[in-house]
Amino acid sequence: MASKPAKGEQRALIQEEIKNTGERIRQLKLQEQTDEVKNKIKEETSKLVELKKELGDGGKTQKFVLKTPKGTRDYMPKQMAVRQRAFEVIVGAFERHGAVQIDTPVFELKETLTGKYGEDSKLIYDLADQGGEMLSLRYDLTVPFARYVAMNKIDKIKRYHIAKVYRRDNPAMTRGRYREFYQCDIDIAGQYDAMIPDAECVKIVAEILADLELGDFKIKVNHRRLLDGMFAVCGVPEGKFRTICSAVDKLDKATWEEVRKEMVDEKGLEGSAADRIGEYVKLSGGMNLVERLAQDGELMKNKNAKEALEDMELLLQYCELFNVTEKVLFDLSLARGLDYYTGVIYEAILTGKLPDLGKAEKGEPVGVGSVAGGGRYDNLVGMFDPKGRKVPCVGVSIGIERIFSILEAKSEASDKKMRTNKTQVLVASGQKNMLQHRLKLASELWEAGVKAEVLYKKNPKMLNQFQFCEEGGVPLCLVIGEKELEEGIVTLRDMESREEVSVKRADVCDIIKKRLQSA
Amino acid sequence: MASKPAKGEQRALIQEEIKNTGERIRQLKLQEQTDEVKNKIKEETSKLVELKKELGDGGKTQKFVLKTPKGTRDYMPKQMAVRQRAFEVIVGAFERHGAVQIDTPVFELKETLTGKYGEDSKLIYDLADQGGEMLSLRYDLTVPFARYVAMNKIDKIKRYHIAKVYRRDNPAMTRGRYREFYQCDIDIAGQYDAMIPDAECVKIVAEILADLELGDFKIKVNHRRLLDGMFAVCGVPEGKFRTICSAVDKLDKATWEEVRKEMVDEKGLEGSAADRIGEYVKLSGGMNLVERLAQDGELMKNKNAKEALEDMELLLQYCELFNVTEKVLFDLSLARGLDYYTGVIYEAILTGKLPDLGKAEKGEPVGVGSVAGGGRYDNLVGMFDPKGRKVPCVGVSIGIERIFSILEAKSEASDKKMRTNKTQVLVASGQKNMLQHRLKLASELWEAGVKAEVLYKKNPKMLNQFQFCEEGGVPLCLVIGEKELEEGIVTLRDMESREEVSVKRADVCDIIKKRLQSA
Repeated sequence: MASKPAKGEQRALIQEEIKNTGERIRQLKLQEQTDEVKNKIKEETSKLVELKKELGDGGKTQKFVLKTPKGTRDYMPKQMAVRQRAFEVIVGAFERHGAVQIDTPVFELKETLTGKYGEDSKLIYDLADQGGEMLSLRYDLTVPFARYVAMNKIDKIKRYHIAKVYRRDNPAMTRGRYREFYQCDIDIAGQYDAMIPDAECVKIVAEILADLELGDFKIKVNHRRLLDGMFAVCGVPEGKFRTICSAVDKLDKATWEEVRKEMVDEKGLEGSAADRIGEYVKLSGGMNLVERLAQDGELMKNKNAKEALEDMELLLQYCELFNVTEKVLFDLSLARGLDYYTGVIYEAILTGKLPDLGKAEKGEPVGVGSVAGGGRYDNLVGMFDPKGRKVPCVGVSIGIERIFSILEAKSEASDKKMRTNKTQVLVASGQKNMLQHRLKLASELWEAGVKAEVLYKKNPKMLNQFQFCEEGGVPLCLVIGEKELEEGIVTLRDMESREEVSVKRADVCDIIKKRLQSA
Repeated sequence: MASKPAKGEQRALIQEEIKNTGERIRQLKLQEQTDEVKNKIKEETSKLVELKKELGDGGKTQKFVLKTPKGTRDYMPKQMAVRQRAFEVIVGAFERHGAVQIDTPVFELKETLTGKYGEDSKLIYDLADQGGEMLSLRYDLTVPFARYVAMNKIDKIKRYHIAKVYRRDNPAMTRGRYREFYQCDIDIAGQYDAMIPDAECVKIVAEILADLELGDFKIKVNHRRLLDGMFAVCGVPEGKFRTICSAVDKLDKATWEEVRKEMVDEKGLEGSAADRIGEYVKLSGGMNLVERLAQDGELMKNKNAKEALEDMELLLQYCELFNVTEKVLFDLSLARGLDYYTGVIYEAILTGKLPDLGKAEKGEPVGVGSVAGGGRYDNLVGMFDPKGRKVPCVGVSIGIERIFSILEAKSEASDKKMRTNKTQVLVASGQKNMLQHRLKLASELWEAGVKAEVLYKKNPKMLNQFQFCEEGGVPLCLVIGEKELEEGIVTLRDMESREEVSVKRADVCDIIKKRLQSA
């Protein structure tokens, strides 16, 4: 009889009823499936079918979507193993440099994030207004850090923070661009002598990228006040410094012609000013570039540019002492997008041959891009402090998702099988009715600190137990037999060499611990 | 009348008063909105308007609340040190039992969480509708795990997951109840022989609570189907099983009289049925309780109860083999709030003397409560699987925030100073112009894997450098002097013993590494 599809309000009512009925069925399915419950499910289900007929569109109501939200992913055990190893390298470097660790909530008051990210603010995730405070998911770890420093009236701290941040950006997941992703940040806050912590940040990034074995890399450095001075000298009006800076920031992805067009056509800069900028942003080098700019009389008349160049000279000197000169490139085209930087800025890129990360999206070269970035932001804490008290800060952030993508691809390409757990021994038996003995021995091993498992079957087959070891990379298998137990012994099998030895049941924990230590 | 803007100190005073008034209003808004509170808000608001008029610039001062969202907190470095140690213990146990690790996004599609938490669904945080999918922050790690298993068509996995979950509950922060908090979950999914993984979960909790040195504890166990059978036998209509179960769940916080009242007055249960439940939920014990219930003829006629009791008997047998009988209490009053459990349920409580956690809120005893919980949920994965394919699961969750509170209080009470970083050596000098030498030596130490720092000053005082070591617990100090450097030596000072030795500059890394190894 469902001649015409239902419309409007009537339709909404039916949909509501479908939802409620579906919910009742789900609840019933959670219960013990007695006959009474089964009958109720049948009843509700036929009601559901009728309702869907009434809706008149063949019942194609919203089928449940089994997925993670757009731009996010689960980490499977293998990916977690890769991720853990990367974190160990990064935390290792942070701790080698004396940093302490902090953590902040995943969401902040909305107003804490307001006005900190310029054009990118539109990418912030807000929480629904469910009564109470207005909240947003953190966009980075830097703003929460500045809030933390101001709120706790800290005047110096060297801290690291590894946590997820959230951006409603266009995901490009094969290239490691997600909406939920990890950042690994180290920041040094406090009033110190010029450029010493700034140079240490470069050193830390260099250590991490080398330790992760990602091939060759460069750490580009520049200075916001040098850019400002350069803009002034080129004839950019002061009100346009930030927006022209944003345009320069695109030079790693766009050609100079495209960027020039944006400056002139979109941002209303005079062509002659743009052309002068074009000459500067071509320049890169090391101490030679410092010397060249020092000869630029007009630029050196600008106080910002002059002081910034002194900073850069110091930075490069300290980088020499830190043995990273070869990794550092002073690059006038480096601008960084965020508003809050006030001094030196960094960006690290991989320059070696990278594993294939799958097909490119939108024609962008795959696997190329920045893997770390940061800079000095001396005014951000002051924006939070009720009295405007400033705490100068400098820091870098490791863009770990892109690194994960590379490490994952490398691991996939390699022959070595990666283990996802750390089990050292399987307690096994090929005979029936040995479950009790297996459980008891496993328990003793756990208490002795040995990583052990038993199969969750009363009477598993020996072959299945050996297969479990082989597939999971478990190196040892303890085989229990009735006769051997009576004699007070068990068999210890090395899964790789297939060698078996009899050991005393009473000594088994000690023997295994020794074996594992020497392995 | 605000003719001229106020100036200087007067202005600052007004601003201060505006801030205080604003804070009072915010606090009032957080309270229950009685008429009295509403009047106070009105009063304070008109005061605020007056104050802003006085300021004479339309009151456009930066109003800004410097805080973390309600029910959340920052972790300071000391708290992070405590947290890390607790995680190490927990991960240690999870890995000892062969678990792999996974991670899932902090938010899920809203519909993934719908219909899983019964009455608690109102506590779920939703994200704002900013276009695109409707999202919610995860409420626990169990539902995302079931979604993960179904989505990836996994038929068996033993996994752990340590991550933050979100509940818009009433926070009680001194007792470790937050809106953002960590859960540490281990779950075993797969079709296995009865009660073997279930017993391993008990063993894992026992190992963790013992290793964390939280004093004595008990792990209560019960069975959902035994509760259902008991309810049936007592005359509870089947449709009321879940709601009566919720009432029983409150017995750890409320008296039997209060719970009985809820059953009869609110939930419409007959008084006689409630009284019969009252007799059962008094019972607890070990294998003796199994035997006693096995004698209960009426109960044993119920299929659910009979099979559940067989499960409990097996569970207690396996617990005996796992050497945890003394820690386990079979308790008929244990019910657990969540809907999705279908078999054995667990809850661990601390029973020893606990450190003082500050004043009680609402008269609840401080520091008492569950520190772990879980159970079997055989139908949850099936709710996600498009074909309803079921994967039986059992797992436990460690309630780590309450444990942090206790460990923190213990650490505060102890004399031992806790380090927040791991720096092993400070590279120091008491002479001027030694920065270059300090940086170079620090760099060499870092490259050798030594955790080293330098003060970020060109010419720091020796005293300040020693103080830095003493305050931070840095065990070694390398002192550089010009003359010594010419002779190719540096001074290595042990900060605790104050012993100093001269070592060759060239051998310094090796010597320090050896020292630290033997320490």
